[in-house]
Amino acid sequence: MRAVVMRNRQLVVADVPAPEPGRGEVLVRTLACGICGSDLHALRHADRFVEAGRRAGNPHVMDLGRDVVMGHEFCAEIVDHGPETTRALRTGARVCSRPVLIRATGPQSIGYSNDNPGGYGEYMRLTEANLLEVPAGLTTEHAACTEPMAVGVHAVAKARLEPDDAPLVIGCGPVGLAVIAALRLANVRPIVAADFSPRRRELATALGADAVVDPAERTPWQSWREAAVWRDPARAPKLPPWLPGPPVRPAVVFECVGVPGVLDQIMVAAPRGTRVVVVGVCMEPDTIHPLLAIGKELNLQFVLGYTPEEFAATLRHIADGAIPVAPLLTGHVGLGGVAAAFKDLASPDRHAKILVEPGRA
Amino acid sequence: MRAVVMRNRQLVVADVPAPEPGRGEVLVRTLACGICGSDLHALRHADRFVEAGRRAGNPHVMDLGRDVVMGHEFCAEIVDHGPETTRALRTGARVCSRPVLIRATGPQSIGYSNDNPGGYGEYMRLTEANLLEVPAGLTTEHAACTEPMAVGVHAVAKARLEPDDAPLVIGCGPVGLAVIAALRLANVRPIVAADFSPRRRELATALGADAVVDPAERTPWQSWREAAVWRDPARAPKLPPWLPGPPVRPAVVFECVGVPGVLDQIMVAAPRGTRVVVVGVCMEPDTIHPLLAIGKELNLQFVLGYTPEEFAATLRHIADGAIPVAPLLTGHVGLGGVAAAFKDLASPDRHAKILVEPGRA
Repeated sequence: MRAVVMRNRQLVVADVPAPEPGRGEVLVRTLACGICGSDLHALRHADRFVEAGRRAGNPHVMDLGRDVVMGHEFCAEIVDHGPETTRALRTGARVCSRPVLIRATGPQSIGYSNDNPGGYGEYMRLTEANLLEVPAGLTTEHAACTEPMAVGVHAVAKARLEPDDAPLVIGCGPVGLAVIAALRLANVRPIVAADFSPRRRELATALGADAVVDPAERTPWQSWREAAVWRDPARAPKLPPWLPGPPVRPAVVFECVGVPGVLDQIMVAAPRGTRVVVVGVCMEPDTIHPLLAIGKELNLQFVLGYTPEEFAATLRHIADGAIPVAPLLTGHVGLGGVAAAFKDLASPDRHAKILVEPGRA
Repeated sequence: MRAVVMRNRQLVVADVPAPEPGRGEVLVRTLACGICGSDLHALRHADRFVEAGRRAGNPHVMDLGRDVVMGHEFCAEIVDHGPETTRALRTGARVCSRPVLIRATGPQSIGYSNDNPGGYGEYMRLTEANLLEVPAGLTTEHAACTEPMAVGVHAVAKARLEPDDAPLVIGCGPVGLAVIAALRLANVRPIVAADFSPRRRELATALGADAVVDPAERTPWQSWREAAVWRDPARAPKLPPWLPGPPVRPAVVFECVGVPGVLDQIMVAAPRGTRVVVVGVCMEPDTIHPLLAIGKELNLQFVLGYTPEEFAATLRHIADGAIPVAPLLTGHVGLGGVAAAFKDLASPDRHAKILVEPGRA
């Protein structure tokens, strides 16, 4: 099959063997697959990415000396059923799936694997039990947004938000935008979101942010404080006389940047008792000043991925319009355009999500 | 008054002005005051300590060019009442207090302050509203342990332990020992505790640890896994077939070392979903690998100090024997012995808690 292959730390279009579905697996044709920031990272910092996976105890770390077909945000069409499948969904059905193959020996990644090609190739194999049929009327390109939007749904669930919490989203790339959509879905408002890019701030508003802020102009915390003032002063806790008012609601920050130094910046600026949900995937070592976190009794909740239930719910929410994804989609490319798209995505003002369509000319 | 003074980054015994009680304050004579690891740190890394306080936004940071009388773990005796006091407790009453002065302009530290001398001097001023009378029958030296033991009570409260959680205490200095005592008080067991020092492991057992481990001999997590296996297999969650068993209870780690690198070590070894309560006060920058924490969805809860209610409860628990402190007390010195005691405390095998008694010859 034709695929975009990571080979010698470059992306090239090449012919590679099509995967064969094993027991309980189906063969699918990729219809659309989003390019994820983690893929950009995995290409640019390939050795570090592999080393981090090894350090974290992942038993199936990629071998960079062999080909890898990335792509884990996909919508696909069933082409063939492997042995011991129920065939509950027929050939031709459009499906989404978490990018993970369930094998007797344990789960295996689809997309960060030498053996399980992802959506930057014409075909994939998927575990039949993971398949979710795309509801009729939902476009393929919107269905392909299920994976990245599920990341936001999961992050908001792990935040264990209380009714009075006031959220602040730092970074409005695809991860931050997914968090904003999930906060809006959970009706946790007002939602304040910060990004240096005007285009991304526009997208944040389109996905449900109530206020956006350019950190180059003012600190996000100033906007957050204005938004987080108690509407009903009778419900606000009484501040001791020496603290500057007015009292504000508890802060929950979603760190959606994933670059060294951001966590420490948040720890410097955050009010006492702030909960920080770390959604951005920082693959490099990071330096923090624990004393800052200790003095304010901060809480850091690191999160990753989503549960099967959250993934399925996200697909339903996209189908019924409760999670908007249309504003996110800013480009479409065939396999030949993937390498250039990786470069384009480095500029936050042009693109949010580019979909790869292997069937596209 | 005579006091041990931090002057030019050294400890010297000197005559300094006795404090005068302001409105709502009392003058007390220090009976006993514990030497805290943070005091050792503040002396050794004075500039860093001050810089960290400034960075954290503390409005009353010490001026190292002026004298400081440290000491914040004290039991004292009322000598005089300042203006606008209720005199609910009379002259001669033995009292404990959180080491904080409540002023109209805000709280001020006692002991890390140029203006409010701590318990390494003959006299202190305390806020009357903070005073807790030492119950009759409780020795002064045991009462002086209220502050450090309250740190453990608070850390365990902030851990929001569930009935199935299995704790692991890393580091059995005074902070770790206080956590062990508080876990035992909360009946959260089995308690596994790790320290390189045989003497400290003995103390950990004396304070309530069910199992102790020398990290030089085996990883603390191995001991923890043995202790954390579900007693009643019917209650254990079902593991997928590819995960090595047996299933273990959720891990809650108390980081009681406070040295750079420990947090990252914990993040490498901790099982998925572990909650880390950071009680050790690391005053230096620290490097972590966020990807480790992300992949396992770890939670870090940084904690500091205690609430007024926790402080009062700790004094009661010490008085009724529910928090044992006798094993902790390994030395007593007069003011002339403080500098040497600071040096002695660097060796974990000789001492846990040394009390300064300014009235001692």
